[in-house]
Amino acid sequence: MTTEYVELKASFTAEDAFKTIRRTGLEKETIYTCYVTDAKRVLVGVVTVKDMLLAGEEAVIGEIMDQKPVFVYTDDDKEDVMKAMTKYDFLAMPVVDKENRLVGIVTIDDAMDVLQDEDTEDIELMAAITPSDKPYLKTGVFETWRSRILWLMLLMVSATFTSRILTHFEDALSSLPILVAFVPQLMDTGGNAGGQASVSVIRALSLGDVRLGDFLRVLWKELRVALLCGLTLGCVNFIKMLIFNDVSRSVYGVGTSLIISAVVCVTIALAVVIAKIVGSMLPILAKRIGFDPAVMASPLITTIVDILSLLVYFGISTKVLSLVGIQM
Amino acid sequence: MTTEYVELKASFTAEDAFKTIRRTGLEKETIYTCYVTDAKRVLVGVVTVKDMLLAGEEAVIGEIMDQKPVFVYTDDDKEDVMKAMTKYDFLAMPVVDKENRLVGIVTIDDAMDVLQDEDTEDIELMAAITPSDKPYLKTGVFETWRSRILWLMLLMVSATFTSRILTHFEDALSSLPILVAFVPQLMDTGGNAGGQASVSVIRALSLGDVRLGDFLRVLWKELRVALLCGLTLGCVNFIKMLIFNDVSRSVYGVGTSLIISAVVCVTIALAVVIAKIVGSMLPILAKRIGFDPAVMASPLITTIVDILSLLVYFGISTKVLSLVGIQM
Repeated sequence: MTTEYVELKASFTAEDAFKTIRRTGLEKETIYTCYVTDAKRVLVGVVTVKDMLLAGEEAVIGEIMDQKPVFVYTDDDKEDVMKAMTKYDFLAMPVVDKENRLVGIVTIDDAMDVLQDEDTEDIELMAAITPSDKPYLKTGVFETWRSRILWLMLLMVSATFTSRILTHFEDALSSLPILVAFVPQLMDTGGNAGGQASVSVIRALSLGDVRLGDFLRVLWKELRVALLCGLTLGCVNFIKMLIFNDVSRSVYGVGTSLIISAVVCVTIALAVVIAKIVGSMLPILAKRIGFDPAVMASPLITTIVDILSLLVYFGISTKVLSLVGIQM
Repeated sequence: MTTEYVELKASFTAEDAFKTIRRTGLEKETIYTCYVTDAKRVLVGVVTVKDMLLAGEEAVIGEIMDQKPVFVYTDDDKEDVMKAMTKYDFLAMPVVDKENRLVGIVTIDDAMDVLQDEDTEDIELMAAITPSDKPYLKTGVFETWRSRILWLMLLMVSATFTSRILTHFEDALSSLPILVAFVPQLMDTGGNAGGQASVSVIRALSLGDVRLGDFLRVLWKELRVALLCGLTLGCVNFIKMLIFNDVSRSVYGVGTSLIISAVVCVTIALAVVIAKIVGSMLPILAKRIGFDPAVMASPLITTIVDILSLLVYFGISTKVLSLVGIQM
């Protein structure tokens, strides 16, 4: 916010206004919108240099000014201020205190800076980095470490659940170690699918394209996209596994090889669906309870999706393989 | 770009200019900077309404105008135009053709839209989504599927290498299945650490905080941050594994349990270092060879880091465990 603005009275003529502008002789573009205040400095109108040029020098400000100026309060959120400026195509926005007294203006330069800062903050949060105001190379090693380590640690410790699940299914794994081979691929695909959904929704929330009330529309859309993606990936992977003989037919036999491949691909499809639902819903939930949706991006969702996909994978594989009588 | 601008001649007085402005009566803010052209419409100067107000009505435009106006060419990259506008704090930027003839202006509203579009594009690319211009809820299910499926498929297929590695170490895994339990945690931590580095560098490249020539400074910084992060995470995880008895001392014996835990934690530390180096260098490399650095974000880096960490993990564990005579 800056206090470099031109303040006029309603009784001025346009000529008086131009004299005031000349006298204040401000730098930059802030002269083009002038703010009209009363004796108590309460904002009563806004008039642009363009209005005055078009109306002529004799025009009285009180008659040509916009008497219902758009303004923001000193304690408004800077992101909202920026959005209002974009909406009204304002070069500057007056800021008033609780008694509607003019205290300063926010210029579009400030708004652009805020816009970029907000985007940087969102991007950093989405990558599990505590946001910082400083440029990359100006941030010290220790400071960068501090902005990254807490999230890394939190996510590392929460990934412990994945170890528990694998330990739980240790028997199945040691008798059929091939099952393990597909765990990283399953986790990566789930993580990527969830990341896409969460980042799309986070960005849409931040741009105002999606509101909390759109919750069901988002869910319905992501569900269909997820089914399409899951189906495509499952089928492509199944064909790939057959072509490259990923579950060796000579080692496991044709039947078992086919069944294991099918279990892997069905699980990938399910993991994609779970990931996209979790990924799209968590940011909205976060916003609902007052958190920054960006915090709910890929890394956190990856951990959740990993746990769910592993449970589905081992759940399905132990069931199916024991059903068809393959020894686990 | 808009062609709604005020064009003046150098011989005009400020009064003539004000008349021209009144006559053209343009909407919006584009009147405040006027463009002075010669008989061939070549841009020869720029004068603001403020300059004219300060100089008075008799002033001759040719004498008060800025004779070295900053301008851009029609074929300049829109991101560069936007950066120039931010740099010079311009409300509008004149656009000229190859013969320096004025063809239009870019206003700051356009610049703000470009800025947001570029950020959205970067964010989408970083999440492995093919960028689209449409708002989230306006994009059809099939279109969203198309923007996501190619990357998902590419990453899924490239994750096949992780399966190969696990299959390669199948013997070690079936005799010591506990090793598998830490694979997801290792992969997640590596992926998160790499994602942080790549996103930081991608954003810094996009904001102009890091240039291609800063390559070594980035490497040196990330190396130190990575060592700090790796060390912290390795130690924290080791303590956590001891406290929660993650490698059961009653099953494996105290010695083996300690050794396995140590191997896991050393590998996590190494994976973090590898991930941060790969994560910070790939975006710069991408930019160097003419790709958008954002393509090199977390998902792709996760796959690469997964492969490298698994190799390190099994490399170290098989070596160490056979050295100390633990039967694999």
